[in-house]
Amino acid sequence: MPLNATLERVEIELGDRSYPILIGNGLMDDPESYDALPAATSAMVVSNTTVSPLYARQLCTVLRKRFRSVHLLELPDGEAHKDWPTLNLIFDALLSHGCDRKTVLFALGGGVVGDMTGFAAASYMRGVPFVQVPTTLLAQVDSSVGGKTAINHPLGKNMIGAFYQPQLVLCDLGTLATLPARELSAGLGEIIKYGPIYDMAFFDWIEANVDALVARDPEALAHAVKRSCEIKAEVVGQDERESGLRAILNFGHTFGHAIESGLGYGEWLHGEAVGCGMVMATRLSQRLGGVDEAFVTRFTALVERAGLPVVGPALGVERYLELMRIDKKSEGGEIRFVLLERPGSAVMRAAPEALVREVLVECCAV
Amino acid sequence: MPLNATLERVEIELGDRSYPILIGNGLMDDPESYDALPAATSAMVVSNTTVSPLYARQLCTVLRKRFRSVHLLELPDGEAHKDWPTLNLIFDALLSHGCDRKTVLFALGGGVVGDMTGFAAASYMRGVPFVQVPTTLLAQVDSSVGGKTAINHPLGKNMIGAFYQPQLVLCDLGTLATLPARELSAGLGEIIKYGPIYDMAFFDWIEANVDALVARDPEALAHAVKRSCEIKAEVVGQDERESGLRAILNFGHTFGHAIESGLGYGEWLHGEAVGCGMVMATRLSQRLGGVDEAFVTRFTALVERAGLPVVGPALGVERYLELMRIDKKSEGGEIRFVLLERPGSAVMRAAPEALVREVLVECCAV
Repeated sequence: MPLNATLERVEIELGDRSYPILIGNGLMDDPESYDALPAATSAMVVSNTTVSPLYARQLCTVLRKRFRSVHLLELPDGEAHKDWPTLNLIFDALLSHGCDRKTVLFALGGGVVGDMTGFAAASYMRGVPFVQVPTTLLAQVDSSVGGKTAINHPLGKNMIGAFYQPQLVLCDLGTLATLPARELSAGLGEIIKYGPIYDMAFFDWIEANVDALVARDPEALAHAVKRSCEIKAEVVGQDERESGLRAILNFGHTFGHAIESGLGYGEWLHGEAVGCGMVMATRLSQRLGGVDEAFVTRFTALVERAGLPVVGPALGVERYLELMRIDKKSEGGEIRFVLLERPGSAVMRAAPEALVREVLVECCAV
Repeated sequence: MPLNATLERVEIELGDRSYPILIGNGLMDDPESYDALPAATSAMVVSNTTVSPLYARQLCTVLRKRFRSVHLLELPDGEAHKDWPTLNLIFDALLSHGCDRKTVLFALGGGVVGDMTGFAAASYMRGVPFVQVPTTLLAQVDSSVGGKTAINHPLGKNMIGAFYQPQLVLCDLGTLATLPARELSAGLGEIIKYGPIYDMAFFDWIEANVDALVARDPEALAHAVKRSCEIKAEVVGQDERESGLRAILNFGHTFGHAIESGLGYGEWLHGEAVGCGMVMATRLSQRLGGVDEAFVTRFTALVERAGLPVVGPALGVERYLELMRIDKKSEGGEIRFVLLERPGSAVMRAAPEALVREVLVECCAV
């Protein structure tokens, strides 16, 4: 598949909040990409200081053909700024430009920009339209699908947010050319996730193509993004508000959030923490009989080949447990995990604390 | 109707987000009032420093029969505190108590407490259940119905929020006994509103009973709350997201928000600003031919008898126009008003600026 391949399209079916994900090369510059958006006089592109110099000019140029006024806002880059003061910069800009309730927000960047812009769109005047233009592999396969938006609180990650669907997601594969290697690996971690929890055929495909993915082979990346979005769309379409099935998408996240929170947000990338967290969750699944030792070895090797850490940081067992107890998935103080019942199928459940302690000792540095 | 009258009940029909409004005396203390709530281990009552000493103890006592842990949070009182730092006190408390995504929030107070607690419930872990226990007449007839939640921004009122429905609204008429006279009048302003925009028979009833309402006659208040909730429920049920019909509920609000914002939030009560704003909107409607001079006189007299101001503060015409242009209802810089087509029927529309200027000159102090 050449880089100027035929556009791929994944439909997220959510009744009157359905929207398409467009996947392809050069989508951002194509005025037709925006044809389905509602009419409005103004748009605001929200980006960060890293991505904006690379892509904001071209996005604003094409949007000016459609909107009478197009504003650009650059946020500071990084998970450490996924907080209220930074979110408030978006509200300040929207209000100072006189943006109304039809103004369309464009999130141009990775997951942090997407989560914050989405929550700003959900909350500004109680909801304005928004478009995700994810420029990282992680955001293309994960945070642009599912309508989760949020900011962090000093006491926990993603604690304040909304379920809010975009009008459109544009995954322009051209933007992956400038992605740092660590961030590419972080995105691969999320792609790998879909194998053990849902689709072992896709897992086999990733295993066969992981070197091509790491080398940014466009054909491999296009398939990986498309298939990941399809799987997530299937899962989210069945369970928009995360009451049941959707929870399996948090595979690796209970451990991963503890790693991120314990090290301080931004030390490890989210995808790195989740990658390592998946190894720990797979090990815990093995302790509970869901998968065998050979699968743990095979899975760990794939995560490592994707360029991700497979040994947790030395936070200490008690600190891990404390951090996991305030995770959103905990209920009544009980820590819950997404665990593999068998390769290709996951379930959310609690685990005996003694086993969790053993896994923490086994999987973390000392 | 004695104060221990049979419970009134208004159903808000919104599909899977439907909820009941219970109206009666002593509802708060009746454990059965809470029977339909989802099971949860914890609850948090959010109130303010004025209302909490009056009613929080009794509410917490009854809730402790149902929830294993019940926390109480007192916010500073007043519209001036309807801001992010105060909202964040709710998130701080929820997280520091380890509240999970099933925790039920109870808003015990007036519109400010209801709006903030509702937005906190909408946003905490992307949404937890909440119950409105409005203790002002204004909140009982207005802010507890319709799912609007929000905080203010320095550049505009209610600019950051969500549409989010409660599980239950308890209008305990017993709480109106402690309400200051100014706040009672503010609530009457919202009740009067439903006449000219929707139901002239109700308007006639209010006109005949306004002295009884001002004297806090329980029978009159019970009917006024019930009928206002019914009308608002009818309107909101047809238009949850405020795309069309629902906008008529903002009668008086374009002028009223300008008054509140221009004087500084808290100087006039919201209901006072809306009461005066309705007089101005009625005058503007007369200029456009929707109602006659006699109706303006009749309407103005009723607002005055309810104890509300009927002359706008001397902000100056240009300042009024500037403030109204950043109102949420404006689109593309054009100011929009809810205006009377005839007594009993309203519509949202723009008005010629020259007429708006004339009305501002005529209806405001100099």
